[in-house]
Amino acid sequence: MASGERRGPYICGIDAAMDVVTGKWKSLILWELEHGTRRFGELRRALPGISEKMLTQQLRDMEQDGLIHREVYKEVPPKVEYWLTNEGRSLNAALGPLGDWGEERMQRIGAEQVTND
Amino acid sequence: MASGERRGPYICGIDAAMDVVTGKWKSLILWELEHGTRRFGELRRALPGISEKMLTQQLRDMEQDGLIHREVYKEVPPKVEYWLTNEGRSLNAALGPLGDWGEERMQRIGAEQVTND
Repeated sequence: MASGERRGPYICGIDAAMDVVTGKWKSLILWELEHGTRRFGELRRALPGISEKMLTQQLRDMEQDGLIHREVYKEVPPKVEYWLTNEGRSLNAALGPLGDWGEERMQRIGAEQVTND
Repeated sequence: MASGERRGPYICGIDAAMDVVTGKWKSLILWELEHGTRRFGELRRALPGISEKMLTQQLRDMEQDGLIHREVYKEVPPKVEYWLTNEGRSLNAALGPLGDWGEERMQRIGAEQVTND
């Protein structure tokens, strides 16, 4: 991890994985970054309902956990971009079956999908 | 779902899945029930650090989300057992790759594992 911070102890692998991906937003941020490099504003628009403060905090956690890379370009106005690390990419792949299960569940329970219009 | 409650709207399948599995405990409860039917006290002993109140709340949520079944036997003293529904079993399967990723991460970052002694 970027911070070198030691986490755990964990009960099992699921516990360790949930520690870095839990909550509503992190897995959605990972998903969005799977499509490519994103700027802060692009991420915010892609995640309906997230506040600026919440997105900032989630991105900070994920950078510290080594899942994403944050690059600051010394331009005026300053440009900041985010992309997945190898760790983030492998986590995303491991989340795939869970996403499929969720899609099927949405159909089963008749849940609505957020539209981004 | 047992409650017939309508959930969402969700952004995508991951969002819908995370809604029922997020937090530290639910995925671990699913995992434990994969081994078979469990009584309340057995679950509590299997989950180091969980409080009675927290376990009660998690089990109630999961029953409402249709992931587990709760059976009360009219005995003295009363016996209550929990087991996975088909929905819970399929969620567990979808969590498998995430668990494997977490195991690998624990090794990468040198996280300790909780011992249950």
